[in-house]
Amino acid sequence: MPSALVLIAHGTEEMEFTITYDTLVRAGVQCTSALIVPKSEKEPETRWAVCSRGVRIVPDVSEAELTTQYIEQFDAVIVPGGAKGAETLSQSPLVQQIVSDFFKAGRVVAMICAGSLAAKTAKLLNQPITSHPSVKSELEKDFDYREDPVIISGNLITSRGPGTAFPFAFALVERLCGVEKRREVIEPMVFPSRTPLC
Amino acid sequence: MPSALVLIAHGTEEMEFTITYDTLVRAGVQCTSALIVPKSEKEPETRWAVCSRGVRIVPDVSEAELTTQYIEQFDAVIVPGGAKGAETLSQSPLVQQIVSDFFKAGRVVAMICAGSLAAKTAKLLNQPITSHPSVKSELEKDFDYREDPVIISGNLITSRGPGTAFPFAFALVERLCGVEKRREVIEPMVFPSRTPLC
Repeated sequence: MPSALVLIAHGTEEMEFTITYDTLVRAGVQCTSALIVPKSEKEPETRWAVCSRGVRIVPDVSEAELTTQYIEQFDAVIVPGGAKGAETLSQSPLVQQIVSDFFKAGRVVAMICAGSLAAKTAKLLNQPITSHPSVKSELEKDFDYREDPVIISGNLITSRGPGTAFPFAFALVERLCGVEKRREVIEPMVFPSRTPLC
Repeated sequence: MPSALVLIAHGTEEMEFTITYDTLVRAGVQCTSALIVPKSEKEPETRWAVCSRGVRIVPDVSEAELTTQYIEQFDAVIVPGGAKGAETLSQSPLVQQIVSDFFKAGRVVAMICAGSLAAKTAKLLNQPITSHPSVKSELEKDFDYREDPVIISGNLITSRGPGTAFPFAFALVERLCGVEKRREVIEPMVFPSRTPLC
């Protein structure tokens, strides 16, 4: 069974987090969410992340549990957006290390919305990428910036915002579980006909 | 500022809950989530709901806080799906009372996926409705059952599943905040062009 580490922080966009996590679980991916704390805080103030629009999500593990040995079990790492959450995640030395290590090892590295800032701070430069329009100016000099809903550049998969979170999640399902599983997962979700899902 | 009571239980579909709550907050609706406990449990086992695919969400208030006076402040009540969560919500005498009272008072009553079962248990019978296909057989005899992404029948708004959660949330935004706010909320979410959103 493939596995994914889904990062979360205070200010993470809760739709992007939840759509990705839930869709991957539906595909049979073992998901583990991990709460990343800003550098300025030594200890998390609460057991949960207070997301960008106030939904409070309890992570599966804390940052302290993310040892090198623990992290090695995962096939993918996912960085959701939300302005404040993405800043915490992209500025975290631990997240930068995980993203860089996963990318070099050929594992899946996935970012959506402002989460794409982690591609810059982890120095995965000079390749096709997309992001939320609000952070385009921070990325376009260092990347081949594009505006498609999902951009796949080898093992780096990026996307744009809540409105592209389903296509993003389905791209991850296809990469981790195959195109047949992608079809199987989509059907019971009851999308309106003619919804573009890639 | 309009306000909405968003119900949640163990087994609630976390995408349907989160997409609705987050989108309404983006529109300026004051959202309050309330954890409903099955009749068989006297006290909640945890402070959070364990949702259908394992995402753990901390509610804003407990069932005990839902006094008649407290409930009267809300303009809308929302019942998300997820098989086990929808069973708990639709079988709860308190939820049945809230749904029935809101409907009679002309406030917005919104249900998605298996959440539509609450329209049956609260006896809002013989009107146009939709739901997840998995519970169609439980509803089609008592309602004018339809298969559009969102069905609006007076102040009862119903929808089908995670794939229709955005159109459902936007229908609620339009009803509570107007068509201009709906447009304003959609734009920064970056939907792929030609995505059907109603």
